[in-house]
Amino acid sequence: MLLQGLREQVLEANLELVRRGLVLYTFGNASGISRPDGLVVIKPSGVPYEKMTPELLVITDIEGKIVEGDLKPSSDLATHLVLYKAFPAIGGIAHTHSEYATAWAQARRPIPCFGTTHADYFHGPVPVTAAMSDHEISGEYEENTGHVIVRALQEFDAAGTPGILVANHGPFTWGPDPGMAAHHAAILESLARMAYFTLGIHAAAQPVGSALHDKHYLRKHGKNAYYGQGKDKDKDNQ
Amino acid sequence: MLLQGLREQVLEANLELVRRGLVLYTFGNASGISRPDGLVVIKPSGVPYEKMTPELLVITDIEGKIVEGDLKPSSDLATHLVLYKAFPAIGGIAHTHSEYATAWAQARRPIPCFGTTHADYFHGPVPVTAAMSDHEISGEYEENTGHVIVRALQEFDAAGTPGILVANHGPFTWGPDPGMAAHHAAILESLARMAYFTLGIHAAAQPVGSALHDKHYLRKHGKNAYYGQGKDKDKDNQ
Amino acid sequence: MLLQGLREQVLEANLELVRRGLVLYTFGNASGISRPDGLVVIKPSGVPYEKMTPELLVITDIEGKIVEGDLKPSSDLATHLVLYKAFPAIGGIAHTHSEYATAWAQARRPIPCFGTTHADYFHGPVPVTAAMSDHEISGEYEENTGHVIVRALQEFDAAGTPGILVANHGPFTWGPDPGMAAHHAAILESLARMAYFTLGIHAAAQPVGSALHDKHYLRKHGKNAYYGQGKDKDKDNQ
Amino acid sequence: MLLQGLREQVLEANLELVRRGLVLYTFGNASGISRPDGLVVIKPSGVPYEKMTPELLVITDIEGKIVEGDLKPSSDLATHLVLYKAFPAIGGIAHTHSEYATAWAQARRPIPCFGTTHADYFHGPVPVTAAMSDHEISGEYEENTGHVIVRALQEFDAAGTPGILVANHGPFTWGPDPGMAAHHAAILESLARMAYFTLGIHAAAQPVGSALHDKHYLRKHGKNAYYGQGKDKDKDNQ
Repeated sequence: MLLQGLREQVLEANLELVRRGLVLYTFGNASGISRPDGLVVIKPSGVPYEKMTPELLVITDIEGKIVEGDLKPSSDLATHLVLYKAFPAIGGIAHTHSEYATAWAQARRPIPCFGTTHADYFHGPVPVTAAMSDHEISGEYEENTGHVIVRALQEFDAAGTPGILVANHGPFTWGPDPGMAAHHAAILESLARMAYFTLGIHAAAQPVGSALHDKHYLRKHGKNAYYGQGKDKDKDNQ
Repeated sequence: MLLQGLREQVLEANLELVRRGLVLYTFGNASGISRPDGLVVIKPSGVPYEKMTPELLVITDIEGKIVEGDLKPSSDLATHLVLYKAFPAIGGIAHTHSEYATAWAQARRPIPCFGTTHADYFHGPVPVTAAMSDHEISGEYEENTGHVIVRALQEFDAAGTPGILVANHGPFTWGPDPGMAAHHAAILESLARMAYFTLGIHAAAQPVGSALHDKHYLRKHGKNAYYGQGKDKDKDNQ
Repeated sequence: MLLQGLREQVLEANLELVRRGLVLYTFGNASGISRPDGLVVIKPSGVPYEKMTPELLVITDIEGKIVEGDLKPSSDLATHLVLYKAFPAIGGIAHTHSEYATAWAQARRPIPCFGTTHADYFHGPVPVTAAMSDHEISGEYEENTGHVIVRALQEFDAAGTPGILVANHGPFTWGPDPGMAAHHAAILESLARMAYFTLGIHAAAQPVGSALHDKHYLRKHGKNAYYGQGKDKDKDNQ
Repeated sequence: MLLQGLREQVLEANLELVRRGLVLYTFGNASGISRPDGLVVIKPSGVPYEKMTPELLVITDIEGKIVEGDLKPSSDLATHLVLYKAFPAIGGIAHTHSEYATAWAQARRPIPCFGTTHADYFHGPVPVTAAMSDHEISGEYEENTGHVIVRALQEFDAAGTPGILVANHGPFTWGPDPGMAAHHAAILESLARMAYFTLGIHAAAQPVGSALHDKHYLRKHGKNAYYGQGKDKDKDNQ
């Protein structure tokens, strides 16, 4: 069986989505890529999380051709592949319908950076894609979902944007590995919740200034980061 | 004992309502029908969920006459029977007072389709019935609740509407079997929650266009569906 | 040890407040009265729920004099005693700071009856008391809290009002026994939550008409009730 | 190993933040001070709560110099030290990103005292600091966070203010020991939640009057307090 280690990482990332309350039933999916092999490991379609094992995951090449696995891959595979091709630094992707992030996607509003929790992870607002055209929807829909994400990120600091809201759909997040992609899915849901409450308290609340935003983002990311114990920096926030 | 298999399905559907946090105390009920026998299995009235067993469920004929069982059936039985008669494709029904769906019912507002999670399950908004007249209320109230549902569905794609909000009351959902009726109850509550949050972020949020709505609904339903592993299609959403 | 049975009922009612998520730390309290003995069993002040036993509960007479018990009774005892004197049909009382009911109390707004869940339990809105005067606050505060409740109930169908919101404080509920008082505390929190969501969906939502309100209230209460299995009627709602 | 008892208290306070749902991943931190020794025990940076032991905590002197411990202390240590120096009565500090309190901090609105739960703990509103200047942010940021807190408290009854919201960041709470600091973090989140709901019900809701505020605060604090069993008064509220 190919890529035993990555299979286990992808399984664990999928289960993290469940543990953090980000998915209902079989909704959602996480994948990982082995860049040297050009192979992607992804959740199969419609298999309950509690029955998932590393063996049930599906391995495809970068074009989506199944290399190992008896089940159909997640139907969102085509979206993942577009992102892996566009962003070489990405090692894992997660997609959920987590409820507050999805509500922002449904409202078609980017999530403003209202505080340092957000600034610790996103070096700008959480962007929302354009709505897809009827042509994009009737064509290769899942692949076009990937393209609409890539287009939206051209306007942003893509390196400082570990996730996005697909308009009227829900969040996609990514990271250097599948575990960090799932971690960002949980963080994004928390940011979405806090931004929702913030607007409820003060409808005209303003985003943080750039000095505070940069301070928090850069003390956790980049060469001058000083958070954590000198490893797994992105997971630290105390 | 009649219909052992259906009794177990109905028990399981009732317990699913509890597991998904859709019912408080003895609120709510689920039933199933055996079309060949013309018999309905339903939760007894006022029995705590944790004490329920297949044997305690009540079996009636399609007119509500008890065929097997020592307990009184749920007082909503008459509503279920009207729906079973009106919609021959229905094999199970669930009723809850789940809090967000009930709030939409209390606000007497249909739930707009703001995103693909909704479009995956409902081929239109989640409808809300008309208020019942004083005459309907003082007469055969529970039976008339069924009639007001049937009337509301005449204006909708009934096949693409696995649930409804009874005005000032709460949701009823259905499906090909009791398990899917309970599944739809959980989905409806999630949709209700996300639509509530969506309005909180942007009061003038617009429903999705018909191209996206159709795309999502039809990739999971009907002869061209391509979701899941080719079985239990309605339960897949990844 | 006096009143072993009632001690166990009161303990169980207090623990039900915890299980239903209605209390934080040692907040909240439940009591019961033995009418033949004129004795009240109440939670001691400041004892963690997980350490509470029937023996630790405090028994007082109707004037609040300790008859049995080494600990101080809940400081809300005086409020309970006023209610027991004013309403001879009450056998148990519960007080919580459950968050949605408390928010309505803090907003000093009665909870309108927006739906049948509410109508199943309250034969009118959930009332809110007047604010207490400085004189009432600086005097026998806890006893005066009872008096302000009694005054508020003079304007309502007291028999059909199993709870109230004390302005800027929180809910008190009652019932024929301590268990039903705690049950009503949980129901009230659910009603408060659903009414809050209802207003969020439609700020001008209207209460249900009297025909529907009466239908639901009276099918569960009074001599023509037809819910449940002919016992514990108030606990049934399916 | 130094300060075994305080290490255990600080560990327990950190775990209480987890149990009460106030922290996500490794967010948040709690510390304690031994005044006679002039030593502070604090959570290490970026260590998962489930792996934390008394031995992994870090001990520093009041200037932040590590006295015992192999790991880096929480990067918020400098903030804690400023507070310990400014307020000699404080024995423990907690910092979380709990979601409702953080939303108030993000909205830069003090939490009004809408009810007695709040009045039981805070002898005024929950204050929010001024935004930090670019100069303060680019300088010793964490230390300056402490200074901005101290400045904000000069306008309040500091003794009656066991916590504060740092603008666009989140809450800091304190108490006579680490356990009470964590307790106040949980209380603050509950107050933040109830105040949020209160505004949702009635946007023009008014704070309680001073008579009620004083009554509740003073029956739990100070020499005339009469709550609880005569010990741990601050933890009682029934």
